[in-house]
Amino acid sequence: MGKLLIVGSVAFDTIETPFGKTDKILGGAAPFIGLAASQFNVESAIVSIVGNDFPQEYLDLFTDRNIDISGIEVVKDGKTFFWKGKYHNDLNSRDTLETQLNVLADFNPIVPKSFKDADVLMLGNLNPSVQLSVIDQMEVKPKLIVLDTMNFWMDIALEELMEVIAKVDVITINDEEARQLSGEYSLVKAAEKIHTMGPKYVVIKKGEHGALLFHKGSIFFAPALPLEEVFDPTGAGDTFAGGFSGYIAKTDDYSFDNMKNAVIHGSNLASFNVEKFGSERLQELTKEEVYKRLTQFKSLTQFDIKLT
Amino acid sequence: MGKLLIVGSVAFDTIETPFGKTDKILGGAAPFIGLAASQFNVESAIVSIVGNDFPQEYLDLFTDRNIDISGIEVVKDGKTFFWKGKYHNDLNSRDTLETQLNVLADFNPIVPKSFKDADVLMLGNLNPSVQLSVIDQMEVKPKLIVLDTMNFWMDIALEELMEVIAKVDVITINDEEARQLSGEYSLVKAAEKIHTMGPKYVVIKKGEHGALLFHKGSIFFAPALPLEEVFDPTGAGDTFAGGFSGYIAKTDDYSFDNMKNAVIHGSNLASFNVEKFGSERLQELTKEEVYKRLTQFKSLTQFDIKLT
Repeated sequence: MGKLLIVGSVAFDTIETPFGKTDKILGGAAPFIGLAASQFNVESAIVSIVGNDFPQEYLDLFTDRNIDISGIEVVKDGKTFFWKGKYHNDLNSRDTLETQLNVLADFNPIVPKSFKDADVLMLGNLNPSVQLSVIDQMEVKPKLIVLDTMNFWMDIALEELMEVIAKVDVITINDEEARQLSGEYSLVKAAEKIHTMGPKYVVIKKGEHGALLFHKGSIFFAPALPLEEVFDPTGAGDTFAGGFSGYIAKTDDYSFDNMKNAVIHGSNLASFNVEKFGSERLQELTKEEVYKRLTQFKSLTQFDIKLT
Repeated sequence: MGKLLIVGSVAFDTIETPFGKTDKILGGAAPFIGLAASQFNVESAIVSIVGNDFPQEYLDLFTDRNIDISGIEVVKDGKTFFWKGKYHNDLNSRDTLETQLNVLADFNPIVPKSFKDADVLMLGNLNPSVQLSVIDQMEVKPKLIVLDTMNFWMDIALEELMEVIAKVDVITINDEEARQLSGEYSLVKAAEKIHTMGPKYVVIKKGEHGALLFHKGSIFFAPALPLEEVFDPTGAGDTFAGGFSGYIAKTDDYSFDNMKNAVIHGSNLASFNVEKFGSERLQELTKEEVYKRLTQFKSLTQFDIKLT
């Protein structure tokens, strides 16, 4: 069993979908990553920042899951990062109605001493300068560094982002972002180009259309589980990243075959996350439910053509 | 080994894609279906209609592949169905520039005596009244009837189409058509509704995003093989149908597990078809190439999570 270090935003989200709306609920990349990874009983820590408006019950939620919170800075006179968004009817696109960076604007991450030798470093979607700082603070080179990022950073901080990309083993981005980053429309060509930027493993997320894992000319594909209804897609990508990195940390196996399993676990957990608002579904999720749906993933994808 | 009867259009196509344009080349649903199914050395026949402008070399192409052409009516003073289309830059949509129904307008299909006991009946995309007539001419109830259709018939001949749908075992349509036919946005709900219309098996094709097979609450998913470049998508759906029905006919096995294999074979053959204009790639395709790519499909999708 390896140790997992997570850096990412912790936020309040206010979400509106065709099915309803929320008050301020727990959001940000790190909680989704942490809750997803906690399914594997892995030893993990979150590095992040919140304001004094952040409720103790959310912090307790982390510690209850064996997530070390000593790296979550609480700013006494600050307010927690806030995001408000509204999804369109097909849930495939959304408008950001409000963003208040608040304490996140001046975030200087401090990696807890006991996690400077983490085996897996999961860089959640965040300012690349923060991600770089965390990489630099590691005293032992992690066995695997996983980067999640988005088009926003490609638009406003490409140079720093490229520095991060050069230092990571795995990058997870969506299809449009892969096209933007590479300048290639074909995802196969896009992944080839992104390999040359640094990452040995490229994960391209296609939302309801699944995820592709590229490595040295080999491709693995994990479908999204076909669902009757998607309720709220917020955090699906973070949940995927948490399932992926959590499974790798738990198994301490960095082979391509194990990455395939990690992609399946990530997709599996993401399929739950979209069933309720925010991280509600992850908070109540049981190992039995996770196991049952994994068997569905197996029957969804496994076939038996004899190649003889 | 079962016998396969194919009904479908035979046409001249003129195609323009971002990569080039063609003169009049072989098109229509039946040639793609027949050529794809011929990969399995299955005994098959095409029921269709052409004009006297249809070249002997195309008919020879069919007979060379052990496809019976006695059901292809050649109208002495008629012209072959003609379609001209232009694909947009992303190849996901196209404009029809010209359609000349010609002899297809008055097509009365005649099933050859020796195929009135076919094991598998593949109804290619065509006027539902023609599909109904073929079903009615069968002297022995086929073990499997597969229907391919499209939104065009839902728009102008829904009542007759519903009659056909009620009589088939498998329907293959794309995601938008499934939504149109069912009135449901969720593909899971759409498939459930289409089941109630008749088909025990519902295949929903999602183009580059793969295909879903629904049966009694179970779902199987076959990805499309990620390709560096798609050259011409014309006939991909027909090729899928041909691979699917050809494999079922060859194996004479009508179980759900074998349907899964058939969906993989259909996807595999379709992945070749899009590499060149029209059916050019299918015409030159070797068993070695098909086999090699099947192994790619396996490594693309198969994983080994122990569920214990």
